[in-house]
Amino acid sequence: MSGAPAMEADAMEGLKAAMAEAASEVDEMLDALLPKEEGEERSLFAAMRYATMGGGKKLRAFLVLEGARQFGVARHSALRAAAAVEMLHGYSLVHDDLPAMDNDDLRRGKPTVHRAWDEATAILVGDALQTHAFATLAAPETHSDPAVRAELCLQLALASGARGMVGGQMLDMMAEKATAPLDEAAIGRLQMLKTGKLIEFSAEAGAILGRAAAGPRNCLTFYGREIGAAFQIADDLLDLTATAEEAGKATGKDAGAGKATLLGLLGPERARIQAERLVEQAKRHLDGFDERAGLLRALADHVIRRRN
Amino acid sequence: MSGAPAMEADAMEGLKAAMAEAASEVDEMLDALLPKEEGEERSLFAAMRYATMGGGKKLRAFLVLEGARQFGVARHSALRAAAAVEMLHGYSLVHDDLPAMDNDDLRRGKPTVHRAWDEATAILVGDALQTHAFATLAAPETHSDPAVRAELCLQLALASGARGMVGGQMLDMMAEKATAPLDEAAIGRLQMLKTGKLIEFSAEAGAILGRAAAGPRNCLTFYGREIGAAFQIADDLLDLTATAEEAGKATGKDAGAGKATLLGLLGPERARIQAERLVEQAKRHLDGFDERAGLLRALADHVIRRRN
Repeated sequence: MSGAPAMEADAMEGLKAAMAEAASEVDEMLDALLPKEEGEERSLFAAMRYATMGGGKKLRAFLVLEGARQFGVARHSALRAAAAVEMLHGYSLVHDDLPAMDNDDLRRGKPTVHRAWDEATAILVGDALQTHAFATLAAPETHSDPAVRAELCLQLALASGARGMVGGQMLDMMAEKATAPLDEAAIGRLQMLKTGKLIEFSAEAGAILGRAAAGPRNCLTFYGREIGAAFQIADDLLDLTATAEEAGKATGKDAGAGKATLLGLLGPERARIQAERLVEQAKRHLDGFDERAGLLRALADHVIRRRN
Repeated sequence: MSGAPAMEADAMEGLKAAMAEAASEVDEMLDALLPKEEGEERSLFAAMRYATMGGGKKLRAFLVLEGARQFGVARHSALRAAAAVEMLHGYSLVHDDLPAMDNDDLRRGKPTVHRAWDEATAILVGDALQTHAFATLAAPETHSDPAVRAELCLQLALASGARGMVGGQMLDMMAEKATAPLDEAAIGRLQMLKTGKLIEFSAEAGAILGRAAAGPRNCLTFYGREIGAAFQIADDLLDLTATAEEAGKATGKDAGAGKATLLGLLGPERARIQAERLVEQAKRHLDGFDERAGLLRALADHVIRRRN
């Protein structure tokens, strides 16, 4: 019994090291994939790099890589898909931070793109990062099987479009202006769309790359769904308790802006219990996987313990 | 000899009728593909429809459809690809019109999206339309061959991303702030990126759908390139001479804003001669095609004669 907490601490250290290693590999891939800072329009290229490289936990990329590991996908394929997901995520952050949206000055401890450059550049950077995500997935270098590439493009688009991430952002904006607070079902739907769908896709992408059967593919998708929901609660708890320095962005904004969060509805205690329940469910979806899923299991535990 | 102008007038009438018919078919396809105006986030869906349906010449869609006709592509496939290109084009217009970009109030004779709704909605509408273009191309319904779908996604992304349309928009923004005017080569590059690449892709898409050999595919691509360049000059001439009512948008802005156009550099006479030369070259790329290319030939002639 006495070994358990130590083992858990070991797993946590192993996870952190693996995530840092993966983030650095993904940064290298982003460096290779994104346009070099040259030519007349180099400030666009520079800002695309600024918005995606060298910062952030790259959780979504990690999910792609670890999902891919379950099916023995070639590292180069997995890294390209992981980089594409980070481009998509980066685009959403750049546009989310715009004055007309959340109007944020700080992101990952650095000025947001529209602060470091200007608003027009930030709009174009987000637009181009989205495009580049699809260009990356569709290119023959990502996988020799065009059916895999087309499926990756389709599922990423479904996860991030009007009925996915962007739809969720629209609901979020509307919630801020609404007079009546959202109920639990409405908040759940909003967050499932806004952040959940892309995390779900990230977990599923490895199975698509590995041409996995529907069974294991669905297990990863469901794992991603629970992890995504737990991650959102953890993010809200962090916003409540962490300092801006720890989080690398403005914190305590949610309560101030009357943001629709499960935390606001349930309170921190019940929200934390809910997140723990989600983590347990997430791990259960991995029951059919072998020891290669160790980092995915550790990640589930990590989600609700992180400080940034 | 005396029959030639009459034949030409007939061809022009035939083209106009065909373009109107195609635009209406593409609108039907957009109606089928875009999310219905229902649910909490219906204003997002409504604005996506507003930005793409029921207005505009749908030149790009027409190019897709007529390109596809050369290779006997199924109408349903061609219409889906045509609708996707119009979604992509619509997104670029919505973002281009934003206050931080061109700050336009009028588009196709109607208030721009950020005027009819608000800025945040316009940002999200553009984002979601881009995503939906890729979702449409990647879906199995567009073509039974996944290699065709992946190639369509890849080429659309290359045409519209940081090294295509968005790169061109960046150059355009920079040109407006620049102290020295651009030279002919720089303007040519700007316009090739900003509007040329997507028109080129539109002409090429039919060949991709038809799994055409490199030879005829390149002919269509080159045709699209010349048409695109001629179209840009015609657009600038129109901006100079047409009324806002005719054009459905603010005109005379280019000269006022010191916009970098070939027209500004060459003057109207030389610019018109240049456009006519491009039209002749465009038609020459169709020499190897049979009578099915009649509308593409007529379109080339039409480009520099249109009033809106």
